[in-house]
Amino acid sequence: MPTTDTLNRETTLCISLAARPSNLGTRFHNYLYDELGLDFVYKAFAPTDIAAAVAGIRGLGIRGAGVSMPYKEVCIPLLDELDPSAAVIDSVNTIVNTDGRLVGYNTDYLAVATALARHEIPVGTEFLLRGSGGMAKAVAAALRDHGLGTGTIVARNARTGPALAAQYGFDWVADAGDRTAPLLVNVTPVGMAGGPQSDEMSFDRAAIAQAHTVFDVIAFPARTPLIRAAEEAGKPTITGAEIIAAQAAEQFALYTGIRPDDEQIRRASEFSRA
Amino acid sequence: MPTTDTLNRETTLCISLAARPSNLGTRFHNYLYDELGLDFVYKAFAPTDIAAAVAGIRGLGIRGAGVSMPYKEVCIPLLDELDPSAAVIDSVNTIVNTDGRLVGYNTDYLAVATALARHEIPVGTEFLLRGSGGMAKAVAAALRDHGLGTGTIVARNARTGPALAAQYGFDWVADAGDRTAPLLVNVTPVGMAGGPQSDEMSFDRAAIAQAHTVFDVIAFPARTPLIRAAEEAGKPTITGAEIIAAQAAEQFALYTGIRPDDEQIRRASEFSRA
Repeated sequence: MPTTDTLNRETTLCISLAARPSNLGTRFHNYLYDELGLDFVYKAFAPTDIAAAVAGIRGLGIRGAGVSMPYKEVCIPLLDELDPSAAVIDSVNTIVNTDGRLVGYNTDYLAVATALARHEIPVGTEFLLRGSGGMAKAVAAALRDHGLGTGTIVARNARTGPALAAQYGFDWVADAGDRTAPLLVNVTPVGMAGGPQSDEMSFDRAAIAQAHTVFDVIAFPARTPLIRAAEEAGKPTITGAEIIAAQAAEQFALYTGIRPDDEQIRRASEFSRA
Repeated sequence: MPTTDTLNRETTLCISLAARPSNLGTRFHNYLYDELGLDFVYKAFAPTDIAAAVAGIRGLGIRGAGVSMPYKEVCIPLLDELDPSAAVIDSVNTIVNTDGRLVGYNTDYLAVATALARHEIPVGTEFLLRGSGGMAKAVAAALRDHGLGTGTIVARNARTGPALAAQYGFDWVADAGDRTAPLLVNVTPVGMAGGPQSDEMSFDRAAIAQAHTVFDVIAFPARTPLIRAAEEAGKPTITGAEIIAAQAAEQFALYTGIRPDDEQIRRASEFSRA
């Protein structure tokens, strides 16, 4: 990031818009601007009026904006175009401003899609996915688009659970019971640090023992109880820490045109989490 | 200014809006944020749509904005209130956002008023003021409000010259001829570095010899030919470098609530001009 000596009129601003911004994005992006010597600076905002905030992106020529709760869907009518990554789940977490034209992306979707490819999850792998919120939608869409046509959404919510399953052509059950699958995916807050179920797991050890891969989107801690149990059982894992870093790296590439390498992403992620 | 380690969601953003932003404000303000340990950051923008840019100030909760050409007058209808410093000359160079309420100030006016007091220009001092542009308006208003009721605007422009004189109750002449006055004021580009008249003076040595004080608003160079001639003649001077630093310091105080001391202003000014 530019310092007092270097921040200037040409410096490009990227921002984030969230009701309760974290410092993760600020630290991740500014770290890489520094590392790569880019004349960019990143700053988080907590606007109260998303339409006014998006007007600000246009009015000030801000290059990009991360979008978090509660603005991921309500920002859509304010944009000029949706990238397929956002259109497929009706949810924007990234706005890119190119000469006044605002395009909405969803880099959570892109990060999950990339992770499935990188971990070489075979086409047709059956899965169990626990959760039915916004991130579950991104994961379900990415699973389907990776060629995983057979899977079950496990969600107690009798409205959002069946709706998510129907939207992407999966089954739905309220409770997993004794089920397992080659790919187990947690997209609930179970196992999240500081949450009421921080010591719990969305799948039990019997289910894990029969799985091929375990995927937990929870990013804090990096090694949730579920991920630790999977590691102990010798199963390959996809972690939320990997997803959150990958989605930030996708944003970074969209804003700057530069794709950081794995080692740079790892260091920026570590810095952002410190 | 915050660095990568410290820029965060609470950091307050101040900006500037200009068709062709200089780096002066960015360097002045960020230097003092650093010096005083304030969690602020300053960034210049070159918007094309001032209404959208002001919407951005509101939408993102930006604390303050410097306003330069060509937006000093057209921004007025977009604000909620004018401070007397802006109302007296119908020109805003500073917007302060307090909980969504935008108030326009003119710190050029405030800086000239402060300089006249600091240099103890006696009430009633007669003056010659060369120029009739936007800055001439700020200076003329400040001269009048300092109690200088008798003076002459010298301006070749037969429209803006008489209009400025009439507005503040002064005389107007197209050409100074052999006139002089106790206070000589240059508010034209004569003597400005890089300009076509960089080696010239708005008043000749005979006029300077009879004056008490010479005031040049040109800030680059700090010592214009006029200021140097006045110094050589042993006359007290008010320089544009002093005015530009004082107006930035007024902005700084409006944004942060903290008034830097003279030594801090001097160092920030020196840094900004380097």
